[in-house]
Amino acid sequence: MTLSVTGGDLQRLRRLNALAALAALRAGGPATLTQLAERADLARATIKVVIQDLMELGWVVQMDPSGGEKGRPARRYRFRAEAGRVLGLDIGAHKVLAVVADLDGNVLHTTREPVTPEQPRAERLAAVDRAVDACLTGSGTSAPDIWIAVAGSTGYIDLHGHVVLSRAIQDWSGVPLADHLEQRLRCTVLVENDSRLAALAECRRGVARDTRNMIFLHVGRRAGAAVVLDGVPLRGGGGAAGEIGVHPLFNVGGLLQAVPSVEPGTPPDAVAGAVFEAVRRGDDEARRAVLRYVKVLALATTAMALTVDPDLVVLGGGFSRSADVLLEPLRGELETMCLRAPELRASVLGEECVAVGAVCHGVEHLSTMLFNPEVGPLTAVAPPR
Amino acid sequence: MTLSVTGGDLQRLRRLNALAALAALRAGGPATLTQLAERADLARATIKVVIQDLMELGWVVQMDPSGGEKGRPARRYRFRAEAGRVLGLDIGAHKVLAVVADLDGNVLHTTREPVTPEQPRAERLAAVDRAVDACLTGSGTSAPDIWIAVAGSTGYIDLHGHVVLSRAIQDWSGVPLADHLEQRLRCTVLVENDSRLAALAECRRGVARDTRNMIFLHVGRRAGAAVVLDGVPLRGGGGAAGEIGVHPLFNVGGLLQAVPSVEPGTPPDAVAGAVFEAVRRGDDEARRAVLRYVKVLALATTAMALTVDPDLVVLGGGFSRSADVLLEPLRGELETMCLRAPELRASVLGEECVAVGAVCHGVEHLSTMLFNPEVGPLTAVAPPR
Repeated sequence: MTLSVTGGDLQRLRRLNALAALAALRAGGPATLTQLAERADLARATIKVVIQDLMELGWVVQMDPSGGEKGRPARRYRFRAEAGRVLGLDIGAHKVLAVVADLDGNVLHTTREPVTPEQPRAERLAAVDRAVDACLTGSGTSAPDIWIAVAGSTGYIDLHGHVVLSRAIQDWSGVPLADHLEQRLRCTVLVENDSRLAALAECRRGVARDTRNMIFLHVGRRAGAAVVLDGVPLRGGGGAAGEIGVHPLFNVGGLLQAVPSVEPGTPPDAVAGAVFEAVRRGDDEARRAVLRYVKVLALATTAMALTVDPDLVVLGGGFSRSADVLLEPLRGELETMCLRAPELRASVLGEECVAVGAVCHGVEHLSTMLFNPEVGPLTAVAPPR
Repeated sequence: MTLSVTGGDLQRLRRLNALAALAALRAGGPATLTQLAERADLARATIKVVIQDLMELGWVVQMDPSGGEKGRPARRYRFRAEAGRVLGLDIGAHKVLAVVADLDGNVLHTTREPVTPEQPRAERLAAVDRAVDACLTGSGTSAPDIWIAVAGSTGYIDLHGHVVLSRAIQDWSGVPLADHLEQRLRCTVLVENDSRLAALAECRRGVARDTRNMIFLHVGRRAGAAVVLDGVPLRGGGGAAGEIGVHPLFNVGGLLQAVPSVEPGTPPDAVAGAVFEAVRRGDDEARRAVLRYVKVLALATTAMALTVDPDLVVLGGGFSRSADVLLEPLRGELETMCLRAPELRASVLGEECVAVGAVCHGVEHLSTMLFNPEVGPLTAVAPPR
């Protein structure tokens, strides 16, 4: 067989070598040329030239020699994660969280603005702006340093990032959230369902790091879910994957209310917590109410599990703080009803779950825009456009 | 940036060019060198050499000039789909279907053996053998020409092709089906869930060809399902994806029985058909029974649809012959309950759906084994090992 190598092929090899070096540096942390050559499976001579190029482009920097040893220590290099910033937002019914992170997703600063489900849209957007401004200031970031912003929001968000329908936030369906953020930040903006971002966070940084197939179950006053398959959060044909909360089966609303030991007049948001507390005190009525709730939760979870056969279900959302009460009975129900019962664990990332997921999504999206061999040659450090 | 090209890179380019030419030939049908160069986006000189190599290896053949035109017509080439054979099997409760096809999946011959759900395992395996033998004879195929055999079977089949659990066939759970077929055929054998193969068939050859995300709903005396995401049937973490039939929600068993107009003594297998027939005659009781059935079917389908957000649901299985009765009320329920209601269509491939899906799966698996740039150099025509 003869060989035909075109100019395009050579360009592609150049890119591939540079991207392999960069990926090795990001995945394994700072390294010497020899270490990198091994990690990236490239000749040391190739790596040397490639790293020089990447330094000129601004993606890689040589570290100060740590010294200590005799002789000249081998030079070490690292990815310049400080070259840009990623903004993550969690826009919920009761709070807005903003997080600024570097290009490796390391969180530099977090801010929080309280909101209410009933607030008009303009007030919630103003709270978003305040949270962003405070986070930029707090992290010493100027707006042009933000390369990408990812906002998680409750509700059905379509593939274009439009908030089609929100039940948890009153005046939110149809809000032009991406437009609002783009106008303020002048960078790439993605809007994504909050449960999906929470699922991503648990997969990359939380309790699901060892799992490729999982269901994130958001339980609280409202129920929702997200599915991760082969490591990727599932959007489905139109972005509505995981919206099991609207199923009649998932009607868990009143199940945790009619418990005598919970004092009349307890605010609606506090009732479930009071029921869980009563269970911990040994209250039988409360235990029965929780078991009824778990049965319904298990029916819905089993329907999802039988559909996608996950290895793991992560219990997240407000009720995950009561995993000590919920996990064992829910596990029992799943083991009875599923053909292949998934493992069940409680979320570990807590309140910052969605915002951390937004940062993870932003970092991964930047990588596909900047460091993807299909996209084009690697250019000097700059936000993608 | 300097360039480092290794021997491995050159080998890879050779392979990529040959595979690009082969893929172009298979996807677009017979072509001249000029047409192929355009299709594969390679230089004509490269294509010429590559096609010569592929002819020497036995994968491509020059076609007889069709003549008719003045002057010497341009030579045309085609993929040698007759180089090997694919065997597809559908092993169900009531029938065994065997299909022999060429490497492009064109069906050459089909045979059918009746079986019963109650038959002991050995008898069903003997029926499988008879169906295979008859199909080989009928298609003029000798066993060594079969490069791959794919068997679809009811039940939960794990990722290794083990029949973990079958409810529809009595003596079938744990049957060493792959071993049995491998011993007889001495080729690669895959065993897969039948609904998953039916879904694949509808996506590649049937009513779902325009869709990447769909749910195949198998409805009959038992209910099952399969999910296709981004064009690929979903297995899930352990192969149990789609086994919604075991969910308490999907308990549709008795719903189509207590209809007065169906004569007592009608065999269980014929009851549903009689109810559907009564609906067509305008029987109100029968219509109400069907609506009750559809309501339950819709609850289960909606749970799956809210989990994966498909663009299309295909109604398959025995009851799909009564799509004229079922489709409209089911569509109404889905439109009420789903956030983003999928389209609903009836299966068009009918009884051969699973066997055709088995052939499609076999052809695609062969392609990844033989024509995958990651696997190794392209070798002369021979079954994969």
